[in-house]
Amino acid sequence: MAGISLRKARTIIRKAMEHGKSEGMKPLSVVVLDDGGNVIAFERGDGASPGRFGIAHGKAYGAVMLGMSGRAQMARAEAQAYFMAAANGVFGGSVVPVPGGVILRDAKGRMLGAVGVTGDTSENDEAAAVAGIEAAGGLTAEP
Amino acid sequence: MAGISLRKARTIIRKAMEHGKSEGMKPLSVVVLDDGGNVIAFERGDGASPGRFGIAHGKAYGAVMLGMSGRAQMARAEAQAYFMAAANGVFGGSVVPVPGGVILRDAKGRMLGAVGVTGDTSENDEAAAVAGIEAAGGLTAEP
Amino acid sequence: MAGISLRKARTIIRKAMEHGKSEGMKPLSVVVLDDGGNVIAFERGDGASPGRFGIAHGKAYGAVMLGMSGRAQMARAEAQAYFMAAANGVFGGSVVPVPGGVILRDAKGRMLGAVGVTGDTSENDEAAAVAGIEAAGGLTAEP
Amino acid sequence: MAGISLRKARTIIRKAMEHGKSEGMKPLSVVVLDDGGNVIAFERGDGASPGRFGIAHGKAYGAVMLGMSGRAQMARAEAQAYFMAAANGVFGGSVVPVPGGVILRDAKGRMLGAVGVTGDTSENDEAAAVAGIEAAGGLTAEP
Repeated sequence: MAGISLRKARTIIRKAMEHGKSEGMKPLSVVVLDDGGNVIAFERGDGASPGRFGIAHGKAYGAVMLGMSGRAQMARAEAQAYFMAAANGVFGGSVVPVPGGVILRDAKGRMLGAVGVTGDTSENDEAAAVAGIEAAGGLTAEP
Repeated sequence: MAGISLRKARTIIRKAMEHGKSEGMKPLSVVVLDDGGNVIAFERGDGASPGRFGIAHGKAYGAVMLGMSGRAQMARAEAQAYFMAAANGVFGGSVVPVPGGVILRDAKGRMLGAVGVTGDTSENDEAAAVAGIEAAGGLTAEP
Repeated sequence: MAGISLRKARTIIRKAMEHGKSEGMKPLSVVVLDDGGNVIAFERGDGASPGRFGIAHGKAYGAVMLGMSGRAQMARAEAQAYFMAAANGVFGGSVVPVPGGVILRDAKGRMLGAVGVTGDTSENDEAAAVAGIEAAGGLTAEP
Repeated sequence: MAGISLRKARTIIRKAMEHGKSEGMKPLSVVVLDDGGNVIAFERGDGASPGRFGIAHGKAYGAVMLGMSGRAQMARAEAQAYFMAAANGVFGGSVVPVPGGVILRDAKGRMLGAVGVTGDTSENDEAAAVAGIEAAGGLTAEP
């Protein structure tokens, strides 16, 4: 499978965190999931609150399982809160429908997984995810 | 570990309850969690309804896991109800996003845990939590 | 209601912990539940592992809900493991069927609640619970 | 806080994985949890099965929450299967009681968290966890 290697996942995480630091963001936490919604790698920045794995995971997990980025999920939640609540029921409460969950695609447009970032504002989290993905090379971010 | 000792947790609980009594509040229940969101101590005031552990715990647990006090969570819930609903899914339904969940910090600003108070109005619960924390000495309350 | 006051619950907890210290036990954690299985008070001894609330609660909760002390539950678990597994399904996974969950009765034999102790061996946990209950006065322990 | 920094967690993970490779083990997955049972970092080796986060996490989570390494939990599970089943109910099914969950202590013996390794035999997983911890410097492994 032409999936995301651990090496690539590490690069995404480091670059997303570096982006956050260079922009003066609060400590970020970053997860990379594969195209089955399973965790490849996660790091919680020093000083971040303890529950950050769950939030980062929820952003990325919803993106993979629904095939919708966090931004698209947020739009849906604002239009139809009950839909996202129902989706959360289906997926065991593991969907966090706000920006910062970013789908990863390869050069042919195939979904390879998603990145979830949390720690600062949702918009900044999303920017860090995109920065990490673009720095990794060969991948397209769908925020 | 520079955490909260049981002795300090007891003091916080007693002082919060005394504050409630001196202000004529309804019977309070108070929990103290450590910086990992785990329970150190809890007391339910005589006459309080039986489910108070869950409410007190939920106020403090959300505060620790998200690094946001109950008041900040309430603001987020009012702006983006679906976000706090999603956070609750992630944390097993154990987040109660209203005032009365107060983060504890040490003199250097590090989060040591949180206090959760329930029983009266959310504002009064919060005031009791702050009173308990301040009476314990050496701690800062972030309501 | 002639239930367990917070004052009495505090005494039980302190005396159980003092018993543990005087006997050289590891740090104990102690919960007191009322006759509805709801938490009145809990304390985790300094140095105890973070998950002790859940274990102490599970010992006492099973005792109240089933009307069987931890020792009786253990006997049942050894004879019919599937029964205790099924009971745990019914009660949301909150039953820990080993010694250390001790039913509290008043002078007339009515169940007022239960004490759960954890931290050392199950037998020592149970001895500390009994010591705490007996020191509180007017209560009978059913280990 | 004298906890485990992300930098240290990364070192533990890399060194555990390198140990696995040098010993010819199957691809390993490694998680590092803090002393509250919350995730600091995780990596899944290329070629490992998708569910490895849950297994690695369960080994480390049980170790932190119960204050017992995976080896001690396995002994307890073999002596009293219903106890470990009950502990799993209490902790939401997140406890995997086999070797590979290793407690981390500092020079003074305080628990700082735990490492969970999965992918090869439980004994090999445990050896990789210990190798990672020892390579990180200043930490003691309790397998």
